Amino acid sequence: MNTPLNRMSFHNSAVGILAGGGVLPGQVAQKIIAQGRSVFIIAFEGFAEEAVIRPFPHAYVRLGAAGQLLSLLRQNHCQDIVLIGPVRRPSLLDLRPDKEGAKILARLGKAFFRGDDGLLAALVNILAEEGFHVRGAHEFLHESVGRLGVMGKIVPDEVALHDIELGIKVIHALGKLDIGQACVVQSGVVLAVEAMEGTDKMIIRAGECRQPRPGGVLVKLAKPGQERRADMPTIGPRTIDNVVKAGLRGVGFEPGSTLFTDMQACIDLADQQNIFLYGIDL
Amino acid sequence: MNTPLNRMSFHNSAVGILAGGGVLPGQVAQKIIAQGRSVFIIAFEGFAEEAVIRPFPHAYVRLGAAGQLLSLLRQNHCQDIVLIGPVRRPSLLDLRPDKEGAKILARLGKAFFRGDDGLLAALVNILAEEGFHVRGAHEFLHESVGRLGVMGKIVPDEVALHDIELGIKVIHALGKLDIGQACVVQSGVVLAVEAMEGTDKMIIRAGECRQPRPGGVLVKLAKPGQERRADMPTIGPRTIDNVVKAGLRGVGFEPGSTLFTDMQACIDLADQQNIFLYGIDL
Repeated sequence: MNTPLNRMSFHNSAVGILAGGGVLPGQVAQKIIAQGRSVFIIAFEGFAEEAVIRPFPHAYVRLGAAGQLLSLLRQNHCQDIVLIGPVRRPSLLDLRPDKEGAKILARLGKAFFRGDDGLLAALVNILAEEGFHVRGAHEFLHESVGRLGVMGKIVPDEVALHDIELGIKVIHALGKLDIGQACVVQSGVVLAVEAMEGTDKMIIRAGECRQPRPGGVLVKLAKPGQERRADMPTIGPRTIDNVVKAGLRGVGFEPGSTLFTDMQACIDLADQQNIFLYGIDL
Repeated sequence: MNTPLNRMSFHNSAVGILAGGGVLPGQVAQKIIAQGRSVFIIAFEGFAEEAVIRPFPHAYVRLGAAGQLLSLLRQNHCQDIVLIGPVRRPSLLDLRPDKEGAKILARLGKAFFRGDDGLLAALVNILAEEGFHVRGAHEFLHESVGRLGVMGKIVPDEVALHDIELGIKVIHALGKLDIGQACVVQSGVVLAVEAMEGTDKMIIRAGECRQPRPGGVLVKLAKPGQERRADMPTIGPRTIDNVVKAGLRGVGFEPGSTLFTDMQACIDLADQQNIFLYGIDL
């Protein structure tokens, strides 16, 4: 496979990892190192997890301290950068921007108050204007990207496939308005739709209002036009666990644009629990 | 005002009230009696509230006992009927249909498995085919129907009006897929979208993920094409109470198509708590 890494500039420079929560920043760092490059992690205070970050060269930075962030990236010769791991949308009050941060906020302007997609896309643009190459985490994590069709042993039946179809319609309708990435559908009835609360809470809620027919399906997709370099849909063992607890029968996701935080654990858990993992042919 | 009552047939016959939960079935009954007609309430077991139903001629009927329901309506000379008060979507298992109920289920066919709108519209059609005239509760409850513009003292500001605009788009996009009637928007960001869980839970959730900017807005509308005779959007003091607790600043609703379970209490509570009640000019 021809990886995008072949096309990267500054092969000997470090890759800057702007790290939010979860285990993925560590996995990205390991992959980059395995490919013979070095990394420098900018760990966002209050989001990045100490145990994940500790093994790698890093510095902790407040979200609003854009000046500090940019000079750390430059000091460490990072031209390629990767944004990975969830960061809750900051409030202006929490940000307490430094001088450079205030300038960037001014450049973001109204985008700051738009939905998440607008904000992230604007941030990626500004980083590009500052001379950085923003890479998608999936470029480094090939083995963690969801594949087309059935992953694992369980195959979705007709009812489940129809539910997936309806779920796609729902997410596309919502995505145009920059809302959520996921919903739960059971036998043609939409049980829950994700907005700001996140996928886990949405799955739990769907479990609370499920009906006695065959179990529902979680559908999770990138929003249309979503900036995949900043915010890819992610599925992990906790997702599968919640899916099991909510009485759902499987997960439909977008192949090529979905990261699995621990692919093998997800597949094993799904097989054990008779849950399908299905990369939708969109 | 020229009430639809003037156009009703069988002025001397009783009006049949098919009653789900809450206080509205009692209010409808009182209004009908005040207009000089009699009522007979079919109280759905497990949904209708004893204290609300008790003052009026009534019988308790299981949801699935359509045969019993139809003969009770006929015995009591009810030609006009009103469906009022929430009834949770029944499962086939809970229904345990009687002979007539099984026939009606067969006539409903796939509509039973469609969204709520499809099911309710199909039920209204079947009742019409059986010779009944299904009336909207709002035809009897003029004073309880939400009015255009500002109700109460508080006026929505520009930010709130923009949030209402976005909320309308969200509900219309969802409505085409027969999902929910409500969402919460705060300064251009959609915090929560209602599906199966109901408006109260959705408001509480929105409160949990609100941002530090000016408080959000609850927008609640009829879905496009919603069968208003079976399922009108309803707002009551508990709704306003949840709005206050979630830090929202007001409610945008559809005038003419929204029932307030206790209009004066809602307005008083909203005024006390600086919450606007705004009938949107759609």
